Amino acid sequence: MRVRNKPWAPKLINAHPELITETPTDYRGKWQSRFEKAQPLQIEVGSGKGQFIIEMAKRHPEINYIAIEIQTSVIAVILRKLVDEPLPNLQLAHADGQAVTAFFEPNEVDRLYLNFSDPWPKKRHAKRRLTYKSFLAGYQDVLKPNGQIEFKTDNRGLFEFSLTSMNNFGMAFEQVWLDLHADETVEDNVETEYEQKFSQFGPIYKIIATFKSEK
Amino acid sequence: MRVRNKPWAPKLINAHPELITETPTDYRGKWQSRFEKAQPLQIEVGSGKGQFIIEMAKRHPEINYIAIEIQTSVIAVILRKLVDEPLPNLQLAHADGQAVTAFFEPNEVDRLYLNFSDPWPKKRHAKRRLTYKSFLAGYQDVLKPNGQIEFKTDNRGLFEFSLTSMNNFGMAFEQVWLDLHADETVEDNVETEYEQKFSQFGPIYKIIATFKSEK
Ligand SMILES: C[S@@+](CC[C@H](N)C(=O)[O-])C[C@H]1O[C@@H](n2cnc3c(N)ncnc32)[C@H](O)[C@@H]1O
Ligand SMILES: C[S@@+](CC[C@H](N)C(=O)[O-])C[C@H]1O[C@@H](n2cnc3c(N)ncnc32)[C@H](O)[C@@H]1O
Repeated sequence: MRVRNKPWAPKLINAHPELITETPTDYRGKWQSRFEKAQPLQIEVGSGKGQFIIEMAKRHPEINYIAIEIQTSVIAVILRKLVDEPLPNLQLAHADGQAVTAFFEPNEVDRLYLNFSDPWPKKRHAKRRLTYKSFLAGYQDVLKPNGQIEFKTDNRGLFEFSLTSMNNFGMAFEQVWLDLHADETVEDNVETEYEQKFSQFGPIYKIIATFKSEK
Repeated sequence: MRVRNKPWAPKLINAHPELITETPTDYRGKWQSRFEKAQPLQIEVGSGKGQFIIEMAKRHPEINYIAIEIQTSVIAVILRKLVDEPLPNLQLAHADGQAVTAFFEPNEVDRLYLNFSDPWPKKRHAKRRLTYKSFLAGYQDVLKPNGQIEFKTDNRGLFEFSLTSMNNFGMAFEQVWLDLHADETVEDNVETEYEQKFSQFGPIYKIIATFKSEK
C-alpha cells in the first residue's frame, strides 16, 4: 500500500497508548488486559487502513481484534478512525507481522486474517510473502490447536503460491474460492479496501485453512 | 461429453482386440504385454475423443499410454483414429475408471491424467467426481510411490472441490495454475479437446499433485 507520508502520524500514535502499541512484545501473553472484556482473540496481519478489521470489530463485539500493520502512515489512518469512533474490541499494533511469535504466546490467538498481502512477484522475494513457510510456522505457534487462517487476495500468482505453500506445510484446506464474489451462498463477506477497488478487474480468491493439531 | 450414438462403434471395437479391451481386468499386472516395448505407463481416465492422449503418445514414444473411457461412442472415435494411424505406445480400455484397482496392480502405473472431468455440480453427486476421495484412494493404490496426478479443468467448482479433496487426502501439491494459458513459462502443454473449446470463455486450471509415499 503506497501512501503519502503523514507528518502528524507519530504524534497521534504517541498520544494514544490506550489504542495502539509500537512494542507489542510487552503484551505477549497479556493482550486480553488491553481490552474491555477477555474474549476470543483474532488478528490481522497487514491491515492497511483498517476497513476490514473495523467492520469485523463492529459486527462481532464478542471477539477481540488486533490489527498489525508495519507502515506508520497507514496504521495512523486506522488510529484516527478509532479516535473518532472508539471500539472496545479493537487494538492496534504498529509492527512487523514477521515477528508474531514475539508478540503472542503459544495458543493466544484464535484466528488469523491475511487480506491482499503484498504479492512479492519475483521468485527471489518469495520468502517475504506472508504465506511463505517461515511465516506459516510463526502463525501456527501463536494459534490455538486447529487454529485457522483466512486469506483473501486478487493476486493470482500469490494465491497459486499460497495454495502450494499451505498444502506443503501440512495445513488442511477447509474451503477454497476461486471467485468469491460469484458465490451467492456467502453472506457475511466483509470487503477490504483492496477488495472493493480490485474486484472489478478479476476474481477474488479465498482460502480457509487449518493447522492440524500436532505442534 | 454428449455424442451421437454411433451404430458402427461396437463392431469396430470387436474387430480390434489388439488396440482396445473391454475387460481390462484381464490385463491386471500384465499391461506391458500389450505394448511393443515395456516402458513407463501413464493412464488417462475420461479421455473423450483422445486428442490429448494421442498427442502425448506421439510426443513421448518412450512412454506407454492407456486411455480409459466409459462411453462406447466416444472411445470408438479414438479407436478409429488409431486404426488409421497406429501408435505402438497407446492402448484403449472401454471401461469405468472407478474400478482402476481392478484394472491395475499396485505400483503398475507411473502417472495419471484427468482432463476436464465431468463436474457433477450438485452436492449430492459429489461422490461421482473423479477427484472424490474414493477415486483418489484407487489412484493411489495403482500408482507407484510418489506417483502424480495431473488434472486440468475449466470448471471452477470442480477445481475448488478438487483442491480441497486432494489436500484433505494428504496429497502434496507440486504446482497449481489458476490460469494455465497465461503462464508463458509453460512450453509443453498438450491441449485437450475441451481445453481448445472452452479456454476462450475463462481460465484453465491445473494442478500436479503427488501421493506421499506411505501407502
Ligand atoms: C496491499 S496492502 C492491503 C491492505 C488491506 N489488507 C486491504 O486488503 O485493503 C498490504 C498491507 O500489508 C502491510 N504489510 C506488508 N508486510 C507487512 C508485515 N510484514 N507486517 C505488517 N504489515 C505488513 C503493508 O504495509 C500494507 O499496508
Ligand atoms: C467432459 S469430457 C472431457 C473429455 C476430454 N478429457 C477433454 O478434455 O476433451 C469427460 C469424459 O470423461 C468420460 N468419463 C466420465 N466418467 C468416467 C469414468 N468413470 N470412467 C471413464 N470415463 C469417464 C466421459 O464419458 C467423457 O468422455
